Amino acid sequence: MEVFGLSLPLVEPGDDLPSMILKAADQIGGLRDGDIVVVSSKVVAVAEGRIKELSKIRPSPKAEKIAAKSGQPPELVELILREADRVLKVHRGVLLTIKDGIICANAGVDLSNAPTGKAILLPRHPEKTAERLRLALTSGSGAKVGVVISDSVVHPLRLGTTGQAIATAGIEPVIDCRGKPDLYGKPLKLTYRAIADQLASAAQLVMGEAGERVPVAVVREAEVELVNRPRWSPKIPPRECLYYGARK
Amino acid sequence: MEVFGLSLPLVEPGDDLPSMILKAADQIGGLRDGDIVVVSSKVVAVAEGRIKELSKIRPSPKAEKIAAKSGQPPELVELILREADRVLKVHRGVLLTIKDGIICANAGVDLSNAPTGKAILLPRHPEKTAERLRLALTSGSGAKVGVVISDSVVHPLRLGTTGQAIATAGIEPVIDCRGKPDLYGKPLKLTYRAIADQLASAAQLVMGEAGERVPVAVVREAEVELVNRPRWSPKIPPRECLYYGARK
Repeated sequence: MEVFGLSLPLVEPGDDLPSMILKAADQIGGLRDGDIVVVSSKVVAVAEGRIKELSKIRPSPKAEKIAAKSGQPPELVELILREADRVLKVHRGVLLTIKDGIICANAGVDLSNAPTGKAILLPRHPEKTAERLRLALTSGSGAKVGVVISDSVVHPLRLGTTGQAIATAGIEPVIDCRGKPDLYGKPLKLTYRAIADQLASAAQLVMGEAGERVPVAVVREAEVELVNRPRWSPKIPPRECLYYGARK
Repeated sequence: MEVFGLSLPLVEPGDDLPSMILKAADQIGGLRDGDIVVVSSKVVAVAEGRIKELSKIRPSPKAEKIAAKSGQPPELVELILREADRVLKVHRGVLLTIKDGIICANAGVDLSNAPTGKAILLPRHPEKTAERLRLALTSGSGAKVGVVISDSVVHPLRLGTTGQAIATAGIEPVIDCRGKPDLYGKPLKLTYRAIADQLASAAQLVMGEAGERVPVAVVREAEVELVNRPRWSPKIPPRECLYYGARK
């Protein structure tokens, strides 16, 4: 398996991301059948214009209250509250939230790699965008490819971020291995492989920091099945989650 | 960056794992300077003889009680309780535990890929073993390599497992990017990159299921700094964790 990072020019609102990726793919001789194109959610969001000027946000009393405790600007907290489906916890100025079924810090609202005074939100409809990217990249390159839109995520009791897929198109994001034989021929009991999240993490190794302008990675010759549509989502509801509701 | 899976013969207690890995590395023309060798914790544990016969375990009343509720064999629950530093939750027969500062299901005790009636525990001293592996692989190959011992881990609200490093040697497991400039020259605020965990996930893409006997992966030409010792651990204590203690 090979993983390539693709450098892109600075992405701005309204930019034609598929064309930029196709052009950048010249760096590796173009896309090939079976390639998985991993795209940072940040550039997807910027191209969609999901950028907010903080000075134009009017904070609610609730945002003011959390801001006072957390040391964040109240306008930023207000944006986070608007974006979040649910706030689970405030910890050292960071809000742990659920957004579109994904646990994430600050509902994905981020000041990093945004122009001064502005915040970047998560893409609006990442699943739709992933599918649109897939169709555009496939028709533009003639190669049948898969797409992962990736974000950075922190994990319980771990320092540092790995990649996580917030949307996929054209691949099976999770492989169901239940019932497959183990080394001794016994059926594996509970085993799903989070292929899309693994791809997102492999991509982060070549993406480096966003400041290096490598917001796209191509994973080649991975043992990943290309399909016309994802069969299921890697998200699970809280009632099925091993962690959710665990106490100290 | 390239990622290769290495097939190994079935590993048994007492096996000389470094020699087996060195031999398997012939499949890719041997190890090279800068290679990161990712080894499944499962084969490390088996080589160390960390296998328990369930019929020889006497369950405590506490284990019997949890077993009755969870549908697991009481002997298995007893083993999990002995291995776990802390049990956070029991969910559909799975115990969410902390073991050596890592959150994991069933304290890493696993019946999969173990002979019938036996369970495999986590390696005893993974950090020491990682360092021993690094020294043996380096002296055996003449190449300066890094080592990651990887395990599978599930994540909040996600279906499926990714890789996680339970120990590393010879690499920086986490890169501290605080203060580095973002796309607009502003300092990045809170950004650590969990390189070791990303390497473990990239490796899982080529390892496939353990039944395929690919318990080792080599990551080549990753932008990973090789060092003589890890400078810090990717683990954080509960008081620094964004998730810990979050309620429904």
